[in-house]
Amino acid sequence: MREVAIIGIGHTKFGIASKTLIELFSEAALQATDDANIDPKQIEALFQGAALPGFEEGQVMPAAFSAADLNLGPIPATRCEGACASASVAIRDAAMWVGAGAYDLVLAGGVEKASTMGVSFATRTFAMACHASTEGPAGLTFPGVFAMAARVYARKYGIPLEKLREQMAYVSVKNHRHGALNPLAHFYKKYGALKIEEVLNSRLVADPLTLMDCCPFSDGASALVLCAAEVARKYTDDPVYILGTGQGSGTPLSKMEDLTKPVSRIRSARAAFKQADLSPEDIDMVEIHDCFTIAELIALESIGFFTWGEAAEATATGQTDLGGKIPVNMSGGLIGKGHPIGATGASQIYWLVKQMRGEAPNGNQINPVPEYGMTDTLGGDFGTLCHIILGRSKR
Amino acid sequence: MREVAIIGIGHTKFGIASKTLIELFSEAALQATDDANIDPKQIEALFQGAALPGFEEGQVMPAAFSAADLNLGPIPATRCEGACASASVAIRDAAMWVGAGAYDLVLAGGVEKASTMGVSFATRTFAMACHASTEGPAGLTFPGVFAMAARVYARKYGIPLEKLREQMAYVSVKNHRHGALNPLAHFYKKYGALKIEEVLNSRLVADPLTLMDCCPFSDGASALVLCAAEVARKYTDDPVYILGTGQGSGTPLSKMEDLTKPVSRIRSARAAFKQADLSPEDIDMVEIHDCFTIAELIALESIGFFTWGEAAEATATGQTDLGGKIPVNMSGGLIGKGHPIGATGASQIYWLVKQMRGEAPNGNQINPVPEYGMTDTLGGDFGTLCHIILGRSKR
Repeated sequence: MREVAIIGIGHTKFGIASKTLIELFSEAALQATDDANIDPKQIEALFQGAALPGFEEGQVMPAAFSAADLNLGPIPATRCEGACASASVAIRDAAMWVGAGAYDLVLAGGVEKASTMGVSFATRTFAMACHASTEGPAGLTFPGVFAMAARVYARKYGIPLEKLREQMAYVSVKNHRHGALNPLAHFYKKYGALKIEEVLNSRLVADPLTLMDCCPFSDGASALVLCAAEVARKYTDDPVYILGTGQGSGTPLSKMEDLTKPVSRIRSARAAFKQADLSPEDIDMVEIHDCFTIAELIALESIGFFTWGEAAEATATGQTDLGGKIPVNMSGGLIGKGHPIGATGASQIYWLVKQMRGEAPNGNQINPVPEYGMTDTLGGDFGTLCHIILGRSKR
Repeated sequence: MREVAIIGIGHTKFGIASKTLIELFSEAALQATDDANIDPKQIEALFQGAALPGFEEGQVMPAAFSAADLNLGPIPATRCEGACASASVAIRDAAMWVGAGAYDLVLAGGVEKASTMGVSFATRTFAMACHASTEGPAGLTFPGVFAMAARVYARKYGIPLEKLREQMAYVSVKNHRHGALNPLAHFYKKYGALKIEEVLNSRLVADPLTLMDCCPFSDGASALVLCAAEVARKYTDDPVYILGTGQGSGTPLSKMEDLTKPVSRIRSARAAFKQADLSPEDIDMVEIHDCFTIAELIALESIGFFTWGEAAEATATGQTDLGGKIPVNMSGGLIGKGHPIGATGASQIYWLVKQMRGEAPNGNQINPVPEYGMTDTLGGDFGTLCHIILGRSKR
């Protein structure tokens, strides 16, 4: 298998967009091909993540129409769907096709246009990534799933719920601080000075989670140009390499042994580390799927950045801040940057690449420039997990 | 790249099912693992096609829940969506992962549960695979697209429309004759003695297409076990090899030069032939995406089995019958066997493999047992095309 490099990146503003989802994706894709110094006509295949385009715009099969809008010609265009992990699955798939030698230059990314649905309908449709026959009739939605996870976490590790609420609130404060500095974030300049008390006192969504514990529904797209590592320097001086990927699948919640230790995530992260021949200690930064504050904490433990039950305290004491043990969600994460579902995995990669080029927004840049970064993307209630490890040097 | 073999196949009854889509897929998948003489636990990854599970059952991310229902453990499970070509895209993707050496044993296939929607709503939701911003507001649905294609075909080749209607009707008669012999077909034993006049006189759906020119909406699933060709004979005496695959993408109809010569299909078929190092003359049988009778005719020309404008006459004179130049849709095709969208591409492969094992339903078996077979699967109005070429010997 050949090694694979990222040579171009693109990212729309996240938030409420007036463009269609096809137009949003094209905006990010053309940025990516420009950034890679290639003509879109050189692209040999497209891999696109999108979660709910049928419900959002009555558009199924968006990948093919994106290829057409970008005037890529009759090349293969494949949509991958793994709920909120759709883009990561698409990027992992794209990396395989390039790694196997089938293509030299491909476009991969994701898009979502959630704002067409409104918050209530979006909450319902997103919840279709729960298990339809057992969780659907129970009325489960994702705020409910993660509220349960928070309660399990508190009880399991003997943390008073009020204390956990404060620790979770720190995730929101940190990610909003980062997001406020990110011009492409949904909440740019909005909650940079958010206080713990404001998170605790915001509207209750699913006890113990308040509105500020939750990420927003966003519109947006992000795209990458991947190529064979051996030719990457033909296109750019700053290639970033995909060193390892992993993917895992979960079960209906009723069959999960422990809501705070998703096997799908543990298995996926391990596969990525194994392929990259790295361990959590080697990673300089991570973009975590913080759909809710508690989600960031349990992800950090499942991947292995902290031992079980310690991520909450570690986070509240600054160990995931810039300058801490492992900076987490320097982009703002889903909470500060926004969460256009199908685009999120590609956006996570985009911001790692920006860091590795030394181009992160002022105040969010890690110094020295990070050598290794990792993404963690979660689809549904642990149904689909995907991890991607990037490095500035080849394996 | 390693060569890839199909060592196990499964297929539910097509028609109206009482099972959920997850259950339907599991039924086909367990048949496939049994047929391959493997324990499902040996499967390393799942690739699943599904087109509209959110609209049908409120189930997004079905691949992960299929992996759970099959008790496959936390392995990667990816849903591919390319409208009616979803399963073929998933199988092509699966073949790449095995070919590249990432996995030795994978499960690939597709599923759909269209009957939950009812015909009117299904027609609307299927039409979301048209271009949402130009074709949606115009009220286009697929019967309309293919009615236009029939009219263009008639005018272009100077065929009186009434004559073309009779030639198209022959496709329906032939495919229903095959489907009536297939116990898993939606219309098993139903229209085996259908007459041209009955097709012409059935209810008009979109002029000039009548009800009997159209495939039905069906429920069903089909699944395959793929493995590295080098170890295939460890599992079975009758491996069938994937010799070539192709995939292509189209444009909105308004940008298509010629509705009867879809570039996406031409490009996709050529890619498959090139990889297989074969040409149309080498192929012994083909399963064509006959969503409408006219669709079979234009597909035959685009792939290269007949020259432009000659497929209608060739078909009406028996050249695509059993014993003809190229037997087409010996399974019954979408028209006779049924069309559970996301499953169709896998079903096409299933029936080619059955032929190549000499196990086709009585009356439908090609003799001598065919050496090479090909599938043609169409998503949307030429948005996604996929071709897969199978052989009884390696390349």
